[in-house]
Amino acid sequence: MTADADDVVEHRPLIVAGSGIAGLSAAIYAGRSNNEPLVFEGDEPGGQLTLTTEVDNYPGFPEGISGPELVQNMKEQAQRFGAEIENGIIESVDSDERPFTVRLKNGDVYTADAIIAASGASARTLGIPGEDDLMGYGLSTCATCDGAFFRDEKIIVVGGGDAAMEEANFLTKFASTVYIVHRREEFRAEDYWIDRVMEKVEEGEIEIMRNTEVTELHGSREEGVDHVTLVEHPEGHPTEKLDDPDTEEFDFDVGAVFYAIGHTPNTGYLEGTGVELDDDGYLKAKGGEGGGQTATDVPGIFGAGDVVDYHYQQAATAGGMGVKAALDADDYLEELERGEAAAEAGEVAAVESDDD
Amino acid sequence: MTADADDVVEHRPLIVAGSGIAGLSAAIYAGRSNNEPLVFEGDEPGGQLTLTTEVDNYPGFPEGISGPELVQNMKEQAQRFGAEIENGIIESVDSDERPFTVRLKNGDVYTADAIIAASGASARTLGIPGEDDLMGYGLSTCATCDGAFFRDEKIIVVGGGDAAMEEANFLTKFASTVYIVHRREEFRAEDYWIDRVMEKVEEGEIEIMRNTEVTELHGSREEGVDHVTLVEHPEGHPTEKLDDPDTEEFDFDVGAVFYAIGHTPNTGYLEGTGVELDDDGYLKAKGGEGGGQTATDVPGIFGAGDVVDYHYQQAATAGGMGVKAALDADDYLEELERGEAAAEAGEVAAVESDDD
Repeated sequence: MTADADDVVEHRPLIVAGSGIAGLSAAIYAGRSNNEPLVFEGDEPGGQLTLTTEVDNYPGFPEGISGPELVQNMKEQAQRFGAEIENGIIESVDSDERPFTVRLKNGDVYTADAIIAASGASARTLGIPGEDDLMGYGLSTCATCDGAFFRDEKIIVVGGGDAAMEEANFLTKFASTVYIVHRREEFRAEDYWIDRVMEKVEEGEIEIMRNTEVTELHGSREEGVDHVTLVEHPEGHPTEKLDDPDTEEFDFDVGAVFYAIGHTPNTGYLEGTGVELDDDGYLKAKGGEGGGQTATDVPGIFGAGDVVDYHYQQAATAGGMGVKAALDADDYLEELERGEAAAEAGEVAAVESDDD
Repeated sequence: MTADADDVVEHRPLIVAGSGIAGLSAAIYAGRSNNEPLVFEGDEPGGQLTLTTEVDNYPGFPEGISGPELVQNMKEQAQRFGAEIENGIIESVDSDERPFTVRLKNGDVYTADAIIAASGASARTLGIPGEDDLMGYGLSTCATCDGAFFRDEKIIVVGGGDAAMEEANFLTKFASTVYIVHRREEFRAEDYWIDRVMEKVEEGEIEIMRNTEVTELHGSREEGVDHVTLVEHPEGHPTEKLDDPDTEEFDFDVGAVFYAIGHTPNTGYLEGTGVELDDDGYLKAKGGEGGGQTATDVPGIFGAGDVVDYHYQQAATAGGMGVKAALDADDYLEELERGEAAAEAGEVAAVESDDD
């Protein structure tokens, strides 16, 4: 289904889906390339980094910078070069005809010659009983957003990566004790974060519950989380070994639970386009060397940031990929323009020869 | 040839070759991962970006930042997390035995478990008569370094990419007129830069000499560049068509010549290691998706920045790759440590079983 001409709010050479580090970095370069980028912010404006208080490892800020400030800086920088950043969530992209038809959740329709998918990845949940009821009522996926609501309470952080360590560390500001619940023995976090956590363990502010998983959340919207059910097995992954006699189940009183167990890429709006996704739903980009590294298998659709990168997921790597996507999209748009110019010249020549 | 133990100044888990954006971004992350990175600055400390007055497109600085300031920021940030940055040029790396042996030009010898090659690429020259004599005496590869020496003189900029446009634009501050000499009809620069240049063309500050090449530089070290010999052919690449009757040769009076014709990757010190290079001498990294994208075919040697990337070559893309290299190197070092720990445990077990 393509758009009727009079439905269309506007045509743009380039539409960017997402306003995190990848989308904004792309918008800075696309603005400078005169591609008049229109950025739709998506349902998490500014992306994952807005959920981070202090970004210490984005190269260029020796004393660190807050996540929201870094995002705001990039927004202003993109706008300075002509990018427009608008509130809006893309619902679908139609790639049957060109230009692409881009439909928003609010019903507005745009067309675009090229699209950069920089729509990121959203926090993952466990899918256990109590989750749907208590999300936002004692259960959270964002320590920096919600931590301060749970002063002097026991708080569980679920996970074993950088995010879990960072959130646990941060939550010690508020919690009476932070408990890191991790399904394996070893953490896969950066040493930097493990060291910070171990210091807090020595100080008695963090306790680590290894080889342990949460199987149920108990509480109510009125009173929040009251307690959780945990299972533990000495060799890890206890929920896979519930019948094993070594698996122990027990209840544990806590005031809040924070999930830090990874993310799911946001690609629903691309379904109709047939772009290739990997088994976990991440957008597949061409990669390799030379130009076109961010190209997908659908010409004109490029991917950048956490929606593609399931491994590094750093601000600097997302920014670098956003820049690549803008440069790749610019090459594509110039190619397209030259093709159209050649086609028009050809038509004119044909018309002229008719006149002969 | 490996190092005798008493020759070795120091052993480090990680040595980084090069202190540009890629090397410093790697050092920030490697410091945070407790890999005690030692960065050797190389013969262009701070890398290519130190030659740029204003960096407008590095995401995070809405009003731009000077190249040297951005480099200095990253240096301080890396040092804050424990990286050491030392003056020194790596002459060779021996990969026959592990740890790697790293020899500096000054004779000092270090050993390292892993190496990040972030040694960048150096400005290319044309190889024409007069070049060797006049380099630094009216011929330059760095407008921001040397432009101010040529006030009110006619200046030629050779090239057709972003760097050439930027340098030409910058040199209008000083020159009576800037002449862009480009061997083809079309520029491959960003529209942003082409637009800036075209404004200056309209203002009479820049003239463009398309389909033209410099074949000889005339002058002396005492008096600098006096004039150049140029060739022009209406279809471009005139030096390939010197016998063509349409090729015109003529002399042209100028006070200075600036080359902006690309770069050659700095990989000489890696020769002994057998790392794979592409036809242009760029270091081949694994690429693709997931972890290990910066790995070379020699385990423990990683590549990042312009020494690998011949296409995008932006500060943000170099920084992103530096971060990836540090994370890849950290994975490698942790694997190595686990391997050594297992081997030691194995040896102890073997000794104990001998005692039985």
